[in-house]
Amino acid sequence: MSNLEPTVRTTLSRRKERGSYDRDTVFGIIDEARICHVGFVHEGHPFVLPTAHVRVGGAVYLHGALRGRMLGAACAGACLTFTLLDGLVLGRSAMHHSMNYRSVVVLARGRDVTDRDEKAAALAALVERAVPGRSREVRPPNEAELAATRVVAFAIEEASAKIRSGPPVDLASDLEARCWAGVIPLALVAGSPEPDPLMRAGIAQPPRV
Amino acid sequence: MSNLEPTVRTTLSRRKERGSYDRDTVFGIIDEARICHVGFVHEGHPFVLPTAHVRVGGAVYLHGALRGRMLGAACAGACLTFTLLDGLVLGRSAMHHSMNYRSVVVLARGRDVTDRDEKAAALAALVERAVPGRSREVRPPNEAELAATRVVAFAIEEASAKIRSGPPVDLASDLEARCWAGVIPLALVAGSPEPDPLMRAGIAQPPRV
Repeated sequence: MSNLEPTVRTTLSRRKERGSYDRDTVFGIIDEARICHVGFVHEGHPFVLPTAHVRVGGAVYLHGALRGRMLGAACAGACLTFTLLDGLVLGRSAMHHSMNYRSVVVLARGRDVTDRDEKAAALAALVERAVPGRSREVRPPNEAELAATRVVAFAIEEASAKIRSGPPVDLASDLEARCWAGVIPLALVAGSPEPDPLMRAGIAQPPRV
Repeated sequence: MSNLEPTVRTTLSRRKERGSYDRDTVFGIIDEARICHVGFVHEGHPFVLPTAHVRVGGAVYLHGALRGRMLGAACAGACLTFTLLDGLVLGRSAMHHSMNYRSVVVLARGRDVTDRDEKAAALAALVERAVPGRSREVRPPNEAELAATRVVAFAIEEASAKIRSGPPVDLASDLEARCWAGVIPLALVAGSPEPDPLMRAGIAQPPRV
C-alpha cells in the first residue's frame, strides 16, 4: 500500500531506522490499540488524556461530551498517540535496557462531524471496535443522545510509526558477561467476561464477547 | 496518606466522582504503569510520546538522549499521563459503552538532573522497575554513558487520578433488554521470557525475570 508523506514534524530525529511511513503499518497499530492518548494545548500548556478511538478509512474518530475541553482544543491542533507495549528488553548493561513497542503519532486538527449519518456511523464503529457485531445487538443512540455527543474526525495524513522489536543490542564488550539477557514479552490480554449483576436471567453470553 | 492539592488545571470538569487526589492512589497508578505518555509543546503544536518512567519518592524520572527534543521541551512544561486499561464495559445501549481504567495526569516542568548521584540512582531505579534486583546484575552506566544520558525529574504535586470501575451503568429503561451486558477485563500480561540468541551457554534465568 502507499506511503504517508513524511513532514518535518513526523520525521524522526533519533533512531530513524525504527520509523515507518507505511500506511498499512500505521493503520494496523491504530486498529490494534484499545485507546489513544490525545495531546492538546490549553492556555499554552500541554495536556494528554486517554480516550477510546476508532479508525474508519483514513480518519480516526473520537467522541465525547459536547462541552468537554479535550475535543474543542483538539480541533485547533492535536497529537494522537497510539502505543502497543510488546515487551521489556533486558540487556547486559543498564544502558541497553529498552522496550519493544509499536507506536503511531498522528498530527492533525480535528474536524467536527456534523453530518448525522457520519456521526452515527462513527459511533456504531466505536461499539463494533469493542466487540464485532455488537452495534446490532444494542440500542442505538437516540436523537437526544446523538445531539449530546460530539464526534471529531482526524485525518491520518501527517503520521508516522515507530517500532522496536527483537532482542537487546548490547555492546560487543558486554556479550561475555554472565548475565541473563533477553525479552519479557508483554501483551494486553482479555480475562473472563464479568456479567452485569443487573442482567435478567437467561441471557446468553454472545460468542464474540 | 495525604492528599494532593487540587488546582484549576487538575480539577476534573466532567465526571468529578471519578477523580482522586489521594497521594497513595496516584503513586500506585504511576508505579503500576509500564510507560507514560509525555505531552509537550513544540513550536506551538502539541506532541505526545511514550516513554519508560520510574517514580522515586515524590518525583517521576524520565531519561533520554542528550539532544532529544522531548526532554528539552518538557522542561518548559509537560503533562505526564499514566493509563492502566482494566476492561471494556459493554452496556445495553451504544451510548453506555465505556472502559474501566485508572489514569493519572501530572502537570509539571521538568528539572534537569545534574547531580551525578541522583542521576545514577534514577537510572538504577529505571532498571529495577523492569525487574527488581536487576540493577545489581547488569553493568552499571560508565561515565561516558552517564554523560550521554539526560535525566529529568517531574515533581508529583499538580496531579490527579481518574478511575472508572465496575459494571455498565445503563438507563433504567434499557435494563429489560435481552442483551448481554457486563465487563471484559483486560490486563497487561507477561509471556515466557525469550533469551537473547547471543547469550553464552549455561546462564540461568533469574527467578524474577
